[in-house]
Amino acid sequence: MARPKSVVNGLSSAGLYRGMYCPPAMQAVFSARQTLQSMLDVEAALASALVRAGVVPARALPAIRRACQADLYDPAALQAAGRLAGNLAIPLVKALTAEVAARSRPAAKYVHWGATSQDIIDTGLVLQMRAGFGLLLADLARLDRVVAALARRHRRSVMAGRTWLQQAAPVTFGLKAAGWLSALRRDRARLRRAAAETAVLQFGGAVGTLAALGPAAPKVASALAAELRLVLPDLSWHGQRDRIVEAASALGILTGNLGKIARDVSLLMQTEIAEVAEPAAAGRGGSSTMPHKRNAVGCAAVLALAQRVPPLVAALMAAMPQEHERGLGGWQAEWPLLPEVFELTAGALAQMTDALDGLEVDAARMRRNLDATDGLIMAEAVALALAGKIGKPAAHHLLETASLEAVRRRQPLQVVLHGMPEVMRHLDAAALRRLFMPANYLGQADRQITRVLKRRG
Amino acid sequence: MARPKSVVNGLSSAGLYRGMYCPPAMQAVFSARQTLQSMLDVEAALASALVRAGVVPARALPAIRRACQADLYDPAALQAAGRLAGNLAIPLVKALTAEVAARSRPAAKYVHWGATSQDIIDTGLVLQMRAGFGLLLADLARLDRVVAALARRHRRSVMAGRTWLQQAAPVTFGLKAAGWLSALRRDRARLRRAAAETAVLQFGGAVGTLAALGPAAPKVASALAAELRLVLPDLSWHGQRDRIVEAASALGILTGNLGKIARDVSLLMQTEIAEVAEPAAAGRGGSSTMPHKRNAVGCAAVLALAQRVPPLVAALMAAMPQEHERGLGGWQAEWPLLPEVFELTAGALAQMTDALDGLEVDAARMRRNLDATDGLIMAEAVALALAGKIGKPAAHHLLETASLEAVRRRQPLQVVLHGMPEVMRHLDAAALRRLFMPANYLGQADRQITRVLKRRG
Amino acid sequence: MARPKSVVNGLSSAGLYRGMYCPPAMQAVFSARQTLQSMLDVEAALASALVRAGVVPARALPAIRRACQADLYDPAALQAAGRLAGNLAIPLVKALTAEVAARSRPAAKYVHWGATSQDIIDTGLVLQMRAGFGLLLADLARLDRVVAALARRHRRSVMAGRTWLQQAAPVTFGLKAAGWLSALRRDRARLRRAAAETAVLQFGGAVGTLAALGPAAPKVASALAAELRLVLPDLSWHGQRDRIVEAASALGILTGNLGKIARDVSLLMQTEIAEVAEPAAAGRGGSSTMPHKRNAVGCAAVLALAQRVPPLVAALMAAMPQEHERGLGGWQAEWPLLPEVFELTAGALAQMTDALDGLEVDAARMRRNLDATDGLIMAEAVALALAGKIGKPAAHHLLETASLEAVRRRQPLQVVLHGMPEVMRHLDAAALRRLFMPANYLGQADRQITRVLKRRG
Amino acid sequence: MARPKSVVNGLSSAGLYRGMYCPPAMQAVFSARQTLQSMLDVEAALASALVRAGVVPARALPAIRRACQADLYDPAALQAAGRLAGNLAIPLVKALTAEVAARSRPAAKYVHWGATSQDIIDTGLVLQMRAGFGLLLADLARLDRVVAALARRHRRSVMAGRTWLQQAAPVTFGLKAAGWLSALRRDRARLRRAAAETAVLQFGGAVGTLAALGPAAPKVASALAAELRLVLPDLSWHGQRDRIVEAASALGILTGNLGKIARDVSLLMQTEIAEVAEPAAAGRGGSSTMPHKRNAVGCAAVLALAQRVPPLVAALMAAMPQEHERGLGGWQAEWPLLPEVFELTAGALAQMTDALDGLEVDAARMRRNLDATDGLIMAEAVALALAGKIGKPAAHHLLETASLEAVRRRQPLQVVLHGMPEVMRHLDAAALRRLFMPANYLGQADRQITRVLKRRG
Repeated sequence: MARPKSVVNGLSSAGLYRGMYCPPAMQAVFSARQTLQSMLDVEAALASALVRAGVVPARALPAIRRACQADLYDPAALQAAGRLAGNLAIPLVKALTAEVAARSRPAAKYVHWGATSQDIIDTGLVLQMRAGFGLLLADLARLDRVVAALARRHRRSVMAGRTWLQQAAPVTFGLKAAGWLSALRRDRARLRRAAAETAVLQFGGAVGTLAALGPAAPKVASALAAELRLVLPDLSWHGQRDRIVEAASALGILTGNLGKIARDVSLLMQTEIAEVAEPAAAGRGGSSTMPHKRNAVGCAAVLALAQRVPPLVAALMAAMPQEHERGLGGWQAEWPLLPEVFELTAGALAQMTDALDGLEVDAARMRRNLDATDGLIMAEAVALALAGKIGKPAAHHLLETASLEAVRRRQPLQVVLHGMPEVMRHLDAAALRRLFMPANYLGQADRQITRVLKRRG
Repeated sequence: MARPKSVVNGLSSAGLYRGMYCPPAMQAVFSARQTLQSMLDVEAALASALVRAGVVPARALPAIRRACQADLYDPAALQAAGRLAGNLAIPLVKALTAEVAARSRPAAKYVHWGATSQDIIDTGLVLQMRAGFGLLLADLARLDRVVAALARRHRRSVMAGRTWLQQAAPVTFGLKAAGWLSALRRDRARLRRAAAETAVLQFGGAVGTLAALGPAAPKVASALAAELRLVLPDLSWHGQRDRIVEAASALGILTGNLGKIARDVSLLMQTEIAEVAEPAAAGRGGSSTMPHKRNAVGCAAVLALAQRVPPLVAALMAAMPQEHERGLGGWQAEWPLLPEVFELTAGALAQMTDALDGLEVDAARMRRNLDATDGLIMAEAVALALAGKIGKPAAHHLLETASLEAVRRRQPLQVVLHGMPEVMRHLDAAALRRLFMPANYLGQADRQITRVLKRRG
Repeated sequence: MARPKSVVNGLSSAGLYRGMYCPPAMQAVFSARQTLQSMLDVEAALASALVRAGVVPARALPAIRRACQADLYDPAALQAAGRLAGNLAIPLVKALTAEVAARSRPAAKYVHWGATSQDIIDTGLVLQMRAGFGLLLADLARLDRVVAALARRHRRSVMAGRTWLQQAAPVTFGLKAAGWLSALRRDRARLRRAAAETAVLQFGGAVGTLAALGPAAPKVASALAAELRLVLPDLSWHGQRDRIVEAASALGILTGNLGKIARDVSLLMQTEIAEVAEPAAAGRGGSSTMPHKRNAVGCAAVLALAQRVPPLVAALMAAMPQEHERGLGGWQAEWPLLPEVFELTAGALAQMTDALDGLEVDAARMRRNLDATDGLIMAEAVALALAGKIGKPAAHHLLETASLEAVRRRQPLQVVLHGMPEVMRHLDAAALRRLFMPANYLGQADRQITRVLKRRG
Repeated sequence: MARPKSVVNGLSSAGLYRGMYCPPAMQAVFSARQTLQSMLDVEAALASALVRAGVVPARALPAIRRACQADLYDPAALQAAGRLAGNLAIPLVKALTAEVAARSRPAAKYVHWGATSQDIIDTGLVLQMRAGFGLLLADLARLDRVVAALARRHRRSVMAGRTWLQQAAPVTFGLKAAGWLSALRRDRARLRRAAAETAVLQFGGAVGTLAALGPAAPKVASALAAELRLVLPDLSWHGQRDRIVEAASALGILTGNLGKIARDVSLLMQTEIAEVAEPAAAGRGGSSTMPHKRNAVGCAAVLALAQRVPPLVAALMAAMPQEHERGLGGWQAEWPLLPEVFELTAGALAQMTDALDGLEVDAARMRRNLDATDGLIMAEAVALALAGKIGKPAAHHLLETASLEAVRRRQPLQVVLHGMPEVMRHLDAAALRRLFMPANYLGQADRQITRVLKRRG
């Protein structure tokens, strides 16, 4: 069968869908081009470091630096050669050497001096991760502001708190948002930590000893780390992959927290609940035949991504037992997995922000939905008020009887209680009415929101 | 329509790596272009079916069919609109309608008649899966031939059987290959079954009832199934995703079986064992400084893929609990996951075939490695021979003593036994020598190979 | 630190929770005791087979068979010895040999003759799987009856079909149940197939060749397979684990299908929807203070299990690349994973059946909820009716206008349409009213239910 | 209460295997009994806090505290009731109330005052995690000492560095151990952090607002946190599960790092390599017939666990999108998952420590194996030495020629080079010999070991 050349390396189905969610800036960080450029940046920095350490003459530098431009190289050709070589660095170094030689034959021999493929691939990925973390932290800051605004604005928007998908007792929408916010702020701390811990140079040569550089090795390594503004580790980590998995875990947890928000919002958007709606926009989540229909498209995307990221994190974690000084299988699995984790997380973050920024909140409907149980949701509040007068057990028993009666008669609980002398002996009608106002039974909600808003992320 | 920044939709890092392994034909099946074309094929077939069922006038057909060409549509624009709409079918149908209208205004109103987005997306995916299964089965048949040839050719190539990574007793390389082959033949059956079970039409309209088509619905559905050569199911399966997960599981199991082969081959390629080697080729797994080094690049790829596919299968499986008549999150997760499972499986299959077709097998080295234990690997054989004469317990005790002695003295077991009168009383030197020939202790290996080779996949 | 002996091997937290869901019969199949008994059953059958094949004298049999009773062995002691030995079969065979010797010293030497640990462990597990599949198929048949009854009984219980968690168009509860049922019947087929494909003897000796049995091997193997009523495979599968993973996948898919049912039921039980409720029972899902609260405890359990099983399946799949003739790591991972998959699946099946058998269905509430959109859910039906008179585009435009108007004015769509002369020109009031009856817009629902009910699982 | 059949709650197959690896102390922390006791500890502390806050009279305390003893309760009965209730806290609180009432009827009404089930379950789990982290950190410290000793002792034990499972260049076994150690020290930091971040009180009442406690809520919450020595969070985290997943991730990463050690050790134990061996012990990894066989049973266990933990972490991560104020499905999934992650991690840690403490290291064999390539492994060293004299390209070319020749002639590279005048012009025989001493080509290995050993974990 003739195989269409053109389609190969074109956009794939998976790529089409990834592009639907992932913001352009993150796509740029983990583009094929930037993957090559990052490796070339490492090669260029290595050349500088070798010069600084006196291993390589300074005159070799310009030709090398000029050749370290991704646009000079053909991804498809590298890919084909990489399939045979086993990784992309081998053909890239070969092509780079040829490009340098075309500029300065003597300079060519200093290309990649002392390094091994994995030094280049790993450090290149470290540079991409650093850029990726930068984008995520900026995006997270934006979402933080959006969610904090919701918490502030809806501090007093009373709504049903729901457990096991059942109405349980009143909360406020501000409290719900404050819960999301507190998690996002922990995410910010996790991301910062992961960013710091992965900003580490990989540089060990064939088996980690830098033997090929002889006594110049420490100087070259320090200079390279300085050049790239990366931490110089105690030893190379070709086979020790925990930092990378910690980074992926932090992203996975962020995606999970975003999924929690998406779960809540999508449930609140149900036709029968309709307390919030993703912002309306031309072409967004609508249906021409049913103007009432507003699909939670942002939430759907986030929930999909929150299901896709954890298995990728698990794959990275399960790939940790890598063989000896450089692994066979596990390391190779990381190459596409880590970029995907960044891209999907960025997608979830962008989609959630789009859905929450401009979220329509129907506080009146929230209030109305609290009546869905005809007052049963306030039973606990009444019982507590009576307990002060007649003791907790008696109060509890009274409310249980009244509640069952309300369900049986299909009457509001307040009406039933009003007809019970043993209740009205202790409460007048006005007091009873106050007990049925959900806003009076919000406990620490307001203080909790304040505490969360005050805390720095 | 303005396209987003140039970098977007370019080749991503993940795509770069996917392309390294996945064969072009499978990339073509799951390209973005073919994803659109498959959906358009469904729309075209739907138009034909509507005509056949008398719902739509035949004159509307040509304009619709001519507009059902993927090249007419801009993936990037669809992607951008799809982000807002929540899926790709909505903007594609809109764009298709416009294209039809440009050809024939009256025909435009019949586009997508009676169908819902998910009908188009799911059936499009079904068509892609059918093509994907076709490729996999052909590739599997090729690998079957390669492995069967190894089993036949090395039927008598004696080597160490290894358990827990320790030499245990002799086997043949042919037996090892027969073990791989038997698993691959079960894979073939599983793939065929999965292909049959997923070749099912999705067509239910908004909520699965086809209400919008009125009484013509059954006719349209049958005609559409016939048009696409798909099975017509009892009802639509918008929310019942088991068939898809079964397909993914079958591929995951195949990848696992390939991973087993890759594990064995890569271990046999270790410098200290060196019994097999992936085929040599220019640029393949080599190292210019160390001509002895032949990296198991094919095996590394397969092992990486065998770690990446199972989590994707798990993600699809965990996404099954989808909401009501059409889900929110779970379905959306499937879109890129299923194509990835096909592409990665195809990559593993191709890489494994490349590594095995032309595999260098060093039967002499296999034989030599059997001496690594100085004959201890044959202790069981000698014990059994003596058991016939002096009983199993006594024989076993003798061998245990002799084996410990051999280890202590660093002498071959055969030499030690030769010096033991209580052994030589029952065996002459020639008989003893025969017992130390591994080829005499292969049990049923030959019959087992024959049985496997005979069985049809 | 002194470590409390007594607590070890007692019930663990994980065990406490597993026991909450898994039915006693399945717990019995995968109890520690039955795990030992199954291995002992294999040893007993092996002894019989050896006698039948003339390898072992018949007089050795009684002592061996009598010693093959799990209650004779101390699980804790085996566990401690197994930790050192690396598996449970080694200490079990040692203890068994001692027990046999105590009965008949000569018989002791025939224990475990020709077999390897993995033969015993794998075949023991095969026997447990066979019993496990039997239980699951029986339980699935019971759930099938329950769901079929729901489909039949609620064939005409009209309710809102929901997509993306939004009301979309009418369906019936019977149709929803029929969708579940169709998936469960595919599960039944999958389970049967998996049961058949895993009912396979494992018997190969040290490295799969059965060399230790000499020429008697085929006879012994056949007799052993016959004894245990298992299929005799072409060769042993110590390192080829696909059958096991296929079994686990089938269970994972079943659990996913159960999760889909649980998702639907739990969403329908929401306070604001309240269309169904898990059966009431003393202590079941209730809350003493809030008599209106009925927690979906069965659904919660099923959804939890549907999240827990897929990663276990993935772990089994990822463990497939096992080393050489017997693996190091992957095989050991299977031991607890496979039992857990059976137990969790059985738990999900039991919990789902308990929740559906006696499910309270509030058809009146279903009908009422259809009014939540004030008729907008029927817009498509009206548009189709008008299309016959004024063409599809004009009809669609009319309905769009009317729908927007209805939302703006907060009036039922029917009322708005009634006031539009361009509508009433084509429809009289009675016809309009009929169009707003959801039962008239159910398309093929009834036929689909019939088709599913007729099909044999 | 009638107990279910006797088999239920007995040791399961999964439990049997878990017990094989998990140390008794960790089994005790996550025993069913300790699960109940931890919840009861929370109830007792709550009673104290209520007294301290003046909500409950001090005289109620003794009866409550005395009833908070796990041994008073029947796990099987709680399990059966928990199945119906949906969680274990509901029946436990009911049983506790009865026990308190039996001691003091008035005190009974203060049991569980203001709390919800999830407060008790989550905080109980927090207490168990704290104990679990304590054990892991102590065990990790012990492993740290063992690995540090290996790094120190084998600082000069030269061995082959291996990449892609091929010999690449020399390293030392001390360097390999230092690599493991550096990862373990990062694990220690991660565990400490996770321990700190999960030592957080869960206390929010029905929906997180503590409304039932009225204005006393802050005092009660503070007192409860103080009583249990836990951090008081800004708000309750019933639906925000990131802390728990971070803890699980840290354990998963530790297990991955242990798996890396196990991978290396098990590969080095291969018959053909035989550079290290797990410690010998009666019944440990042996085989009676083959005294040369020493199975890597500890490594096998660790590798199995390193495959089992990541999917459990992924399951916890995927369970994060929990519904509203308390979830349905996701939360329930956590109950057994988190204990399992602790137990399996502890098992991996114990097994790895057992295998490394007393590891037999055959430095002579390591040295011998370096000769496996007849000197080719030193080609890079010679090339570098010559490069100083004749330039890098010429040197490289010379070595390439010589290496190919050595392979062709099956002669040591040193011999071949010795016969090449263009080499011997620049090197005398002694210098050449020195270049073939791997100890002279170890680069920074020694410094790297020193750096790692100095760093505090």
